[in-house]
Order: sequence, then structure tokens, then C-alpha cells
Amino acid sequence: MIQNIIDLSRKLESKKVTSESLVRDVFDQIDAPEKQGDLAFLSLYRERALAEATLVDQAREKGLSLPKFAGIPIAVKDLFDVRGEVTRAGSRVLDHMEPAVQDAEVVRNLRLAGFIVVGKNNMTEFAYSGLGINDHFGTPLNPYDKINDRVPGGSSSGAAVSVAEEMVPAAIGTDTGGSCRIPAAFCNVVGFKPSSNRVSKTGCVPLSKTLDCIGAFATSVSCCSVIDSVLSGGIGEDVESRPEGGLRLGVLEGYVTENLDETVASAYQEALTRLSHRGVRLTPITINELAELPNINSKGGFVGSEAYAWHKELLETRGEFYDPWVRARFSAGESQTAADYILLGEHRSRIRAAVSEKHSLFDAFVLPTVQIVPPKLSDLEAPEASNPTNLLCLRNTAVGNFLDCPAISIPCQDANSLPVGLMLMGQTGDDRSLLSIARGLEQIIRGRL
Amino acid sequence: MIQNIIDLSRKLESKKVTSESLVRDVFDQIDAPEKQGDLAFLSLYRERALAEATLVDQAREKGLSLPKFAGIPIAVKDLFDVRGEVTRAGSRVLDHMEPAVQDAEVVRNLRLAGFIVVGKNNMTEFAYSGLGINDHFGTPLNPYDKINDRVPGGSSSGAAVSVAEEMVPAAIGTDTGGSCRIPAAFCNVVGFKPSSNRVSKTGCVPLSKTLDCIGAFATSVSCCSVIDSVLSGGIGEDVESRPEGGLRLGVLEGYVTENLDETVASAYQEALTRLSHRGVRLTPITINELAELPNINSKGGFVGSEAYAWHKELLETRGEFYDPWVRARFSAGESQTAADYILLGEHRSRIRAAVSEKHSLFDAFVLPTVQIVPPKLSDLEAPEASNPTNLLCLRNTAVGNFLDCPAISIPCQDANSLPVGLMLMGQTGDDRSLLSIARGLEQIIRGRL
Repeated sequence: MIQNIIDLSRKLESKKVTSESLVRDVFDQIDAPEKQGDLAFLSLYRERALAEATLVDQAREKGLSLPKFAGIPIAVKDLFDVRGEVTRAGSRVLDHMEPAVQDAEVVRNLRLAGFIVVGKNNMTEFAYSGLGINDHFGTPLNPYDKINDRVPGGSSSGAAVSVAEEMVPAAIGTDTGGSCRIPAAFCNVVGFKPSSNRVSKTGCVPLSKTLDCIGAFATSVSCCSVIDSVLSGGIGEDVESRPEGGLRLGVLEGYVTENLDETVASAYQEALTRLSHRGVRLTPITINELAELPNINSKGGFVGSEAYAWHKELLETRGEFYDPWVRARFSAGESQTAADYILLGEHRSRIRAAVSEKHSLFDAFVLPTVQIVPPKLSDLEAPEASNPTNLLCLRNTAVGNFLDCPAISIPCQDANSLPVGLMLMGQTGDDRSLLSIARGLEQIIRGRL
Repeated sequence: MIQNIIDLSRKLESKKVTSESLVRDVFDQIDAPEKQGDLAFLSLYRERALAEATLVDQAREKGLSLPKFAGIPIAVKDLFDVRGEVTRAGSRVLDHMEPAVQDAEVVRNLRLAGFIVVGKNNMTEFAYSGLGINDHFGTPLNPYDKINDRVPGGSSSGAAVSVAEEMVPAAIGTDTGGSCRIPAAFCNVVGFKPSSNRVSKTGCVPLSKTLDCIGAFATSVSCCSVIDSVLSGGIGEDVESRPEGGLRLGVLEGYVTENLDETVASAYQEALTRLSHRGVRLTPITINELAELPNINSKGGFVGSEAYAWHKELLETRGEFYDPWVRARFSAGESQTAADYILLGEHRSRIRAAVSEKHSLFDAFVLPTVQIVPPKLSDLEAPEASNPTNLLCLRNTAVGNFLDCPAISIPCQDANSLPVGLMLMGQTGDDRSLLSIARGLEQIIRGRL
């Protein structure tokens, strides 16, 4: 399987491969016994995907004009509406709902650009955790250390695993506190979270309407950039690569570098050294306001209150269908007061203004995506263990959601290490600039330059 | 005193009056024993206003180019920042605060357009009631029935009274649930509430950041239109008058016409008859969603939660300085949960969409501004009386805030009646269209055509 959608697009255009062969290969990989197709996907569209592929191939044979990515397989997270199906969001709670009457807007945009949706990926129930555990449908293991049963990260667990295990070239996830970037960092792929209003959330089960973002998992920054263009209604353009010489990166210190795992610290530090050697100007910067985040969010933050408001009725009528751990977390949102919520919004405005002021001195901020390496599933059975570990996973990525900054995680470890992600973070709305910088730095970060 | 700012502007330009004479006249009226200057104003800028007037007159003598309204006196509500002064918002709670470092944006816009700010008007403490009572600084009586000690309406009580008693030609108020339109209706003047984002609220003590609007009290629709242009950053243009023939008005029935006081019902009905006779097409329409408002707002609505969030710390540290009735109302906001607040926002979106759909069939909606005539102050001493009467006053006007529609109240009673307001309500953002329609209908509504 070719794992780069830009290469795939060229090969399809020049008829070196057919869409049918690509789609068949996808399902072969999903069915392969050494891979985790059954855990990475909750639904598969075998017949429809093959039929669509055949039509694309026939249209291409006839010389019809086709969209740029016509015939390329892609997967989407289980919380996006696909017409005619009940949207489950990795849960059993919504089983009684009516089927979706139309595709989610991102699914429509993918189809318009020619992508073939092959299935829906597994995820944490209702996207409410960064670990990737799902007790209803099973938890896919981290492909980089299955022996030690490490988690893949979440909530977009299946999306990351299906790209990492080369079942699909790319997958669409959501990110409310890190759900695109944590699994990307844990599974050695690239994960991009845009600014929250960049991609329409119509037809997507929400976790937090304020913080939710829709982004991509892929094998390169270019692939993420192309998909970001498609998801936001564009034609699938890649960004130009921005030269690294003279780029100014603010290297965040303090809150986001406290208590780094040794493997993370070492891979991250080596990546910074490579960037510096290539002429990137690195300036350490401590933003004191970030250390306020745990206190500001101590009453549950936007996720606690907004998720509770959405789930309130379901918790009352269908509480028994939730994973008890997830139910307890949703129910905790009940105690937040309206004043807490309003003051939270004011704290957010204040901190965003303060950080934006400092951000403007740099082309981007850089920080480790996750402070720890993927934890072991067997260590996370009790809530006393999973709750604090979940917070460790989310600490750095959640900064990007709180600030509404676009952010991308790029693998930065060397060959013998567990996966480690380096995160670049841009200013709100400057998504394409961030992607352009990330594309310019990608090979250095990965240690290939 | 000439009570029309457009006439004043012409007379000043043609040097038939001087600004100094206008400003002197303002203070003479305020000081007149038969008027309520001491209750309608909390601060007066005698020296500064006279000095500014003299400068304007001198500049005009020299033939310098002046803004259109240079030299016209105006008053502003006590909750707007004026540089160098502590902003009190009709309260004693903020006495310890630092003086404002700059003028509120509306005050700056007024000064840029040439207006001379002569003083700050009395108001309900922190704008939190529609009656106009202020136990700290006294309550001005309704100029149309002082013998029966009727209230002027609130919260912009002093603004309405100072225009109604011809102390100033116009005054600036705020409207969160009806605070421009209720006192306008009660005091026989025109009161306009724009869409909430039309006028910047920078430098204004908030009541509800979602619902607050800044508008004008004046003696005609044209005066309100000119001031609306100035407040929103324009040069003070009037709207064109829209011809009445063939205009389609949706006459709201149901929720907003239940239990109308007889005086109100009769004056309103006669105004509708006059409109109909002049060729305005009146169509009765019942919008069932409006009847949901009391239930949707039963936990305090946007005002309860947002005002509590703003006052939380002050209630703790300076609670004894509040009027106990006002303190009790602010404190009640504590019990609203974040989920209540979030679901309130969702109800609002749903109802706005439903109403907007029906609104689009008409040029404007019409309804009585207030369902009752001004109540007597002596009947409102106990909270058991003032709370329900306050709700009666706010019922119809608060619809415009909940929907974020621009709305204007125009006097419609005949000569022997207590004041009654007829309200026209437009679509969000269509403020100028509404003013244009209102200007076209004004003389008919007032019974002058």
C-alpha cells in the first residue's frame, strides 16, 4: 500500500494503479491477521467502496474529468454522520437513534474531492479521553509495542492505528483536548488539529462545541495539508514548504516541559538540536499564564459543562449503556455553575490575548506533543490510574484547544525508540502558515535531514 | 429648548442659535424647580460643557469646518465611562474603583460627532430592573402623572425623564430587557434598541454581555436614527422615510397581547386602525415559540447568570453597598448551572431561527411596548409587588433582546391618556431598515396623520 495520498493521486492519474486495486488492498490489510482491522474499524463499507472505485476507474478510462483525489480510500472517525446509518460515536448509548439523513459536512467534502470512505474508525466512547480505551468495542493496541500492550492514544484511536498499520493512507479524526495529536504521537504518524472554526462540525457528534476541531491523520505534513484544504471546503491544495533558515521558533518551557518522561525529553531535545543546526532560531520562552490552566479548568472546563449539557437527557434515560467510567466523567459536569462557565470564557479570552502577544514574536511555538510515552493498557484498569494518566496525556495538547491555535504533531524519535511527537503550534486562523512551516521542518524533525 | 437635534444642527449651522445658549438653557432647565433635574442626573459637567460650547461657537465664527452636530448637548446613562471619573452605574458599590482612564466608545463617538455631554443620567442600580426605582439616589417620577407618583420606567429612568421634561434633546441608554423602550413608552418619547453588536459596549458596565444593547432616547425617529448612526461609528445620517403604502406588518398576538391593560389595549388598537386606514397591510400572527420564554428563562436567563458572574466578587466583598432588593436578585443567579446556561443558548438559537422564518414574511413585527401603564411607586415598595410588576413591564420588550432584534418604541396614545408605546421590531442586523419603516409610520402611529 502506498501511504501518501499525493503519490497515490499521481499514480491514479497516470493509470499506474486503479482505484479498485487500492480499495481491495485496503480491505486485505484490514483483514490481515497480523493487523488490527477488527479493532481499528467499527464499520466497513466494502461493497459501496468497491462499487465507487469501479466507477472512478471506468470514468478515468473514458477520459472524464475527475476530482484530484478521485479513487483514494480514506477512513473517518465513528462520530461523523454517514447517510443511512446510526451514528454511534464509539458508544452503545445512541443505538436507538434514527439513521443520519445526510452525510456530515466533512464526509461530503471528502466525497466531493473524490475520496472513497472505506469505513468508520474506532474511538474512545464519545471521544471523552486521551488514552484510546473502548470497553464496548475493544481497544486497539499501540502498533509499536503490542507485546507490552501499550495504548494507541485517543480519542481517535482507530484512525491513528489504521494509518500506522498501513490499512488506509489517511483518516479523519476530531480533537477537543488532543484527540488527533495524542494518537498521532503515540502511533508514529502526523496528526493535525486546525483552528476550531476552520472545518464545519455539522453532522459530527460534539464533545465540546467550543473546543472541538476536525483534523487529519496521515503519513506526512503534505498529506495533512491536502486533507485540511478538502475538509475546509477547498480543492485539496498542498502548502508551499517554508525554508527553515531564519525561522523563529518559541520553545515553550515551564508548564509544558515539567516532568517529561526521559524518552520524550531525549527525542525532543535531539530534534531541537537538529533544528538549531539547520539554522532555525530557537528561543526558550516561559508563558506563566499556561500554569493557570489546571486551576482554571478545575471545575471541568468547557468539556465538562458542554458535554454534560449535551448528554444530560441521555444520562437520565440511557445511563446504563455508558461505560461506567465514561458515565462518571460526564456526570461530573453537572456541578459546574453558569458563573463558573462564564468566568471560564473570560479567563480564556485573557490568556489567549496574553499568549497571542508573545506568539507574535515567533513564526510558531514548539513543545512536546505528549509528556509521556504510550502507557500500558494493563496499568489503566482502575479509574485511580486512568484518570491521572489521562490528564498527563492531555496536558500539552489541551493548551492548543484552550488557545484555539492550530497545531501539528510530527514524529521525532529515532529508530529504536517508542514513538515521540514534536508539536508545532501557530496562531488562531493561521492554519496554512503553520502547515507551511511544518512542511519545511518535517524532515529535520524526523531526523532525515 | 428646541427638542430636535436635526433642527438644532441646522439652527447652529445658520448661526440662529449658539451652542453656549443651548448649553446654558440645558442647565437652566435642569435647575428649574418644576422639573426633576436633581433626580434625572447623577453628575453634571457644567464648566466643561460651557467651555466646549464656547469653543464650538468661536470655531464656527471663524468659519472652521465642524462636525454636523457640533455644539448640541446630550446626556448619557451613568454606566458609561467618562475619563477621569469613577463609573458608578447608579450604585454605591463601585465607589472604591479607580477613575476611568478613557471615555466609553459611545462617549468618544458622540464627542467626535460634535455632541457636548452635559451629564450622566440616573438609572436603576446596575440597570437591573424595568421600573426605574433607585433607592440610593432617588427615583424620578413619571412626568406625565407626578401626582399619582407613577414610575418613569427603567433602567434608563433619568435618560427618559430628562428628554421628556425637555432638559436635553436626547440621551443615551442601554437596553438588556427593555431599558430603553420601557422608559420611552412610559415617558412619551421615542426609544430605540439596536441589534446587540451594532454599537460597541467598550467602557460600559455590563448587565448581560449577551443581551446588552446601547440605544437612544429622543423626540423623533429621525433623532434616534441620527444618533444610532453616530453611536455605531457613522457620521450621523438620518434614514430615508419608507412610504407606508403596501408595507406588511406582522401584528404579534398571543404571548405579547395577553392581559393588556385597557388603556394600552385601546391606544394600541387605535394606532393599528390608523395604520390600516393608511394602506399598511396588517396580518395577525401568533408565534407559539414566544410562549416558551418564561419557562426557558425560569432559571434566570442570560441576565441572571451573566450578571452574577460579573458581580460575584463584589457581592462577596461589598455586598452591604447594594440595595438589598437588587442584591437578592443578583445573588439568585448563583444557582444557574453551566448546563442550564448552555441549553439556554441552544433554545435561543432554535427560537431565533423559528421566529426569523416568520419574520421574513413581513417588513416588521408590531406589538405593544409594555402591557401596562406606568405603575405607582407607592404600590411597589415590597418585593412581592415589585418583582411581578417588573416582569409585566419587561415581558414584551425582552422578546427583542432574546431574539436580538432591533426595536423601537413610538408614543401612540391620544392627548388625554397616560403614555403608551407601540413597538416595531425588525430582523437582527436590519437596524436601518427598521428605522426607515419607523420613520415612515411615525406620524400615523402618533395620530398626527
